[in-house]
Amino acid sequence: MSDQGYRPPFYLGIDLGGTSIKSGVVDGDWRPLPKPAASVDTPTSRVKSIHDEALDALQRAADHAIEASGLAWSDIEAVGVGSPGTMDIPAGLLLEPPNLPGWEHFPIREVVADRLNKPTTLQNDANAAAYAEYRAGVGRGTRSLVMFTLGTGIGGGIIEDGRIISGRHSHGAECGHIIIQMEDARRCPCGGLGHLEAYASATALVKRAHEALDRGEESALRARAAERHLTARIIDEAAEAGDALATRLMRETAHYLAVGAVTLIHTIDPDIVVFGGGMTAAGPSFLDAIRAGIRAMAFPVPAARVRVEYAELGPDAGFIGAAGCARQEREATITVGG
Amino acid sequence: MSDQGYRPPFYLGIDLGGTSIKSGVVDGDWRPLPKPAASVDTPTSRVKSIHDEALDALQRAADHAIEASGLAWSDIEAVGVGSPGTMDIPAGLLLEPPNLPGWEHFPIREVVADRLNKPTTLQNDANAAAYAEYRAGVGRGTRSLVMFTLGTGIGGGIIEDGRIISGRHSHGAECGHIIIQMEDARRCPCGGLGHLEAYASATALVKRAHEALDRGEESALRARAAERHLTARIIDEAAEAGDALATRLMRETAHYLAVGAVTLIHTIDPDIVVFGGGMTAAGPSFLDAIRAGIRAMAFPVPAARVRVEYAELGPDAGFIGAAGCARQEREATITVGG
Repeated sequence: MSDQGYRPPFYLGIDLGGTSIKSGVVDGDWRPLPKPAASVDTPTSRVKSIHDEALDALQRAADHAIEASGLAWSDIEAVGVGSPGTMDIPAGLLLEPPNLPGWEHFPIREVVADRLNKPTTLQNDANAAAYAEYRAGVGRGTRSLVMFTLGTGIGGGIIEDGRIISGRHSHGAECGHIIIQMEDARRCPCGGLGHLEAYASATALVKRAHEALDRGEESALRARAAERHLTARIIDEAAEAGDALATRLMRETAHYLAVGAVTLIHTIDPDIVVFGGGMTAAGPSFLDAIRAGIRAMAFPVPAARVRVEYAELGPDAGFIGAAGCARQEREATITVGG
Repeated sequence: MSDQGYRPPFYLGIDLGGTSIKSGVVDGDWRPLPKPAASVDTPTSRVKSIHDEALDALQRAADHAIEASGLAWSDIEAVGVGSPGTMDIPAGLLLEPPNLPGWEHFPIREVVADRLNKPTTLQNDANAAAYAEYRAGVGRGTRSLVMFTLGTGIGGGIIEDGRIISGRHSHGAECGHIIIQMEDARRCPCGGLGHLEAYASATALVKRAHEALDRGEESALRARAAERHLTARIIDEAAEAGDALATRLMRETAHYLAVGAVTLIHTIDPDIVVFGGGMTAAGPSFLDAIRAGIRAMAFPVPAARVRVEYAELGPDAGFIGAAGCARQEREATITVGG
């Protein structure tokens, strides 16, 4: 790989998702090899524990990534795994991740370390994505970053002075589950009331569109809703085409996200707030609406200075960040040990 | 002092407030000398800049503390100053603190360091109080703490893995200014809509009581309100005596605080959430109501494990924490330098 200038240290990242496991190597300059990541299907089972199959799948994904990178396993310093919750990060243990049936109580860090014979780090996937944007994406050069990942739900990651806030009970940076409304509040899929995710996820946006249509509001969205084809993307496209209801729904979504961002600006006060995930396909006008809300609601000094941007790395952020977490942990250990 | 077992290193803390400047020394075991702090009046002026008087007052407070401690200036490693906002912490500069007229744009860190001839640290007073509880108060032995200081307003402090989150623009941990309500929201004294402080400060509690009385609700509070003597303390006492309106107002206040705490539990996920300030005079039933709200609304794992307590150090937290911040900065510098 020397003709492309990749240079050590090399870390392998594994991004464990409900449908696929993506893996790739990141070089000393945080460049991914390969890009896009190598991928294998995620085995799941609703009837039994499948820890052996799970480990085999993780190894296959990692082996594919090594092969695609042109490196040897001996070039790899350590392995990072990013996983959806719930988990016990210090124990390296998955608990009961809703999107990974059959993986419950899987001691993932230890078994991956044993199988791949590499020091292994476990991190929440949203925290890993935030770390990737901080190191290799739109947050390069900053010291603190708050990230919202907008998809079916809303994930989050917080980097403060270069360190991931994963929380004392591995429940830090659940930025979709901050409370933005107390009275007559919407219920979140997690069961909580008034959470940001209940207002501003793609799922919530579609739900709010159906509610408005059910109230009889006129909109180009009505035909698609009747076909049960309403999606966040379609609502955004209707807004771009000038549909009044769709425009209002997108503007409200931006406002809800700005409210959530202001709460984190008034507590973390980061260099940059980053929005990632599928809903960023809505493009610059949606980002500008979020920015305008933040400028209007945050304290003057951070309102004037905080950067508000879309993420840069797309779906590769998962494995880049997982590898980055492994690197961070290893370098911290070496520093302390040395 | 050796017969009382005080031992080095000694740090001097100065707690700068709108009416008085309190100062004291903290020993190597985080014990304050003297307790309560030495105190002088805070000079202020609405018509001119009073930087010279301000510095003289800071020195008098510090000198009183040294005298009361029985130590000599040569025993003091460094000085910490805790001040109300606004400020630029990295620059050591007060900006336009609303409670300190005449102190605007005062380069407090540099002038105190020059006058007292000691390395000097500036920190937000609420952050300093949180650091004091973390090191010397109810948070001893933890690694992360979120604190709400309940008074006329609501201040905040966040310690994460032993470090103060003061924010990139010195606006971190403004826990009173997280948004808990978007629609039909109350306006905060800072101008923002839906902030926790607009619902749950002592001022907000009294305002809500007046509103209920204006709506014609029956209550023992009515006579005191007519005399314009309604205070948070009186409302709490009426609640303890069984008054229905007062009971509901206190219960609602506890709920609002629990909502704010849950947002920070879902982002910081600390070991402990601490409530300090004058409103903690409401006693154990108020704390229990806050706890119950948190247990009901937070994710199950942190809900079961996070501690929720009143602060222990009272008004001494300010100077203890200011001294503690000086110690933390000095020890971090020595570690890096060594």
